[in-house]
Amino acid sequence: MSQLKSEQKIATQKITVGGMKIATANCGIKYKNRDDLLLVIFEKPVAVAGLFTSSTMSASPVIHCRNILKEKQARALIVNSGNANAFTGEVGETIVQKTVDKISSSLNATSSQIFVSSTGVIGELFDVNLITQKIDEMILQANDDKSMIIKASKAIMTTDTKMKLVQKKCLIDSKEVNIIGFAKGSGMIAPNMATMLGYIFTDANVSADVLQKILADIVEKSFNSITVDSDQSTNDTVLAFATATAEHNFIDNAENQSIANFKIAMEELAIELAKMIVIDGEGAKKLIEINVVNATNYQQAKIVAMAIANSPLVKSAMAASDPNWGRIIMAIGKSTTNISPQQIKVKIGNFLIAENGSRVNDYNEANVHEYLKKEEVKIIVDLGINKTQEIKNISTSQAMKQDLYSATVWGCDLNEEYVKINKDYRS
Amino acid sequence: MSQLKSEQKIATQKITVGGMKIATANCGIKYKNRDDLLLVIFEKPVAVAGLFTSSTMSASPVIHCRNILKEKQARALIVNSGNANAFTGEVGETIVQKTVDKISSSLNATSSQIFVSSTGVIGELFDVNLITQKIDEMILQANDDKSMIIKASKAIMTTDTKMKLVQKKCLIDSKEVNIIGFAKGSGMIAPNMATMLGYIFTDANVSADVLQKILADIVEKSFNSITVDSDQSTNDTVLAFATATAEHNFIDNAENQSIANFKIAMEELAIELAKMIVIDGEGAKKLIEINVVNATNYQQAKIVAMAIANSPLVKSAMAASDPNWGRIIMAIGKSTTNISPQQIKVKIGNFLIAENGSRVNDYNEANVHEYLKKEEVKIIVDLGINKTQEIKNISTSQAMKQDLYSATVWGCDLNEEYVKINKDYRS
Repeated sequence: MSQLKSEQKIATQKITVGGMKIATANCGIKYKNRDDLLLVIFEKPVAVAGLFTSSTMSASPVIHCRNILKEKQARALIVNSGNANAFTGEVGETIVQKTVDKISSSLNATSSQIFVSSTGVIGELFDVNLITQKIDEMILQANDDKSMIIKASKAIMTTDTKMKLVQKKCLIDSKEVNIIGFAKGSGMIAPNMATMLGYIFTDANVSADVLQKILADIVEKSFNSITVDSDQSTNDTVLAFATATAEHNFIDNAENQSIANFKIAMEELAIELAKMIVIDGEGAKKLIEINVVNATNYQQAKIVAMAIANSPLVKSAMAASDPNWGRIIMAIGKSTTNISPQQIKVKIGNFLIAENGSRVNDYNEANVHEYLKKEEVKIIVDLGINKTQEIKNISTSQAMKQDLYSATVWGCDLNEEYVKINKDYRS
Repeated sequence: MSQLKSEQKIATQKITVGGMKIATANCGIKYKNRDDLLLVIFEKPVAVAGLFTSSTMSASPVIHCRNILKEKQARALIVNSGNANAFTGEVGETIVQKTVDKISSSLNATSSQIFVSSTGVIGELFDVNLITQKIDEMILQANDDKSMIIKASKAIMTTDTKMKLVQKKCLIDSKEVNIIGFAKGSGMIAPNMATMLGYIFTDANVSADVLQKILADIVEKSFNSITVDSDQSTNDTVLAFATATAEHNFIDNAENQSIANFKIAMEELAIELAKMIVIDGEGAKKLIEINVVNATNYQQAKIVAMAIANSPLVKSAMAASDPNWGRIIMAIGKSTTNISPQQIKVKIGNFLIAENGSRVNDYNEANVHEYLKKEEVKIIVDLGINKTQEIKNISTSQAMKQDLYSATVWGCDLNEEYVKINKDYRS
């Protein structure tokens, strides 16, 4: 589907999250002919949850958000693209402070209610007036037209080639609940060291603590289960806001069964966004899903899956649709202990490749090569420790059953285009 | 220097290790017009030390060597290129056993004295007779001509574009000691998942335990301090043999001061070989040395250095000689805890780039870009924890002082050629 048709389809979907307005503008920090500034305003303080990069070199906006998150309330979110405001020392802190001061005074809010994100090149300064002088105008123009969500998704892009926007509906206590999410990031990585930014808005009436618990769970299974390369940005941020305009009763217990479907919808939305990020990884031509089952625990399954997803040798073989399964064995071998060749099984798509310490007898390389030409491919690994799943039951046509001993991650191929893009940045 | 001139120079060097003979042959497992089989025979049992891949998918030859190493004696080493005999199950074990049986019976040795290595494609079987039928002829032809060391260095190559051979002399108790080392591996990685193989031969008269202690120390600072990508092979092996034909007295205590220079020579040799492997990394055009100083300890320094060396973003910036120092900050940020932007300093070559949480004021990008065009470049990071070294005293013209709070690693750039080679393997 073309970008335009896709936008039309999204704009006509009947998804609205009440209690919020959006404005975008071109402030010109880096980009000249497109919106690069997003302001989301909440009519009244809303519940907020967040997760941030674990980098010790976290950017000033990240440090600010992490600090104010404990107040659990948001009145506004502002995001600029084109400059990450990272490794900018005291000047960077001042930029955040001035931005927050301007918005909080214009909205009559407290500074702990103003969330800030930046994405773009790091280590370079910019004039904060470019942002602050736009604020009053943006507050005036902010509105809740459905088309604004598309403008918002685009304003936060840096090297992304496509906007990443997902909308979901679900029920809580038989009342309709809406969820909108958008994200940016061409993988963890990008020419500008593209930050992964993700924002989720829902009209659910839940406490900040409930939202935080759900967010932590779904981010682990989505944004933290993707990789383009193994790099992590200084600015990675995921924020969720719940405006409480849905009609169900307030929920302040994360174990409440009424929100079971809400959790599922949130996770589906986050996984869809995460996969969009991977497939927009610079130069990526193929989405690779890796299922690891029958591990000691989830952590081990994920380590093995990530080792495969991050292996340059596996990734470059995938770029050539080459069923070089020995590289998968290599990646498994380097990633964890307490496994042995005799124990493990490996499938590529629906083809069993290896078991009992060697290649299967009826291995047909041509068939696997043909399968790997697809745009979305699957690698399935059975570690043979806690035997809760039969690898033969896991196929390309159905999702793996997630249990305590399994993990799914998504990666992409590594091809010349990736290197070219990252090499040529700035020249 | 051309390969040929380089060979002539090496062949005329007066380095010989007594007590050993070499034969090479073309056995045709994969390659048709070059030697692909190496046999080294020791006149009598010699002290041996070894280190192997930590992969749980270790190949059969690795498992064999690990098992027999505890006997601490070697009579022969056999290496084949073209097939790794990895993930080959019981057939792979039989291949090793038959090879060992043939050599041990021909040499009247025990099977625990026969060391075996294989390198090449994994998961594919081959006919062990290709090896065993060559053995008697090779034993007859084995000789100690200095030219044999070059043939040996070449026989173990797979995708290596250059042989990797280093020779050193030193003194133990005023007596001359010779050391010869050769290695293969285009990084940890290669089209065939190139194993890193390294062999060191010395006439020093030292115990196997002393040799093992020295080997462990030098491998940590050499072969384990390089990276082309982050992949680790199923077959990585380093073996050292001491033939005891030098005239000094037997040394069986690793703390004996008489071997101080021997240790230094061994480390220099191993580092030179390791750097040859990096620069022969597929497509690599640039050797990148990373010095990390003033860390909590050696381990932290190495983790940070490896994070920089393995970052695809840093590596692709280096390919373009792009002083994209923000990517170095990113890699530091994701690698370790207990550091802060205010604490760290970063130099590229002799240029201080970042300190006090931001870029230095007199940063001149054009100068750094010019420096990065060199074939060997240096990145220096001061973590500011244990302040034992002044970053301003570390320069491109002198080696970093190694202490308990520092580490040096070597990596290479990432360019289109790397992807092309690894993508196109097997097609």
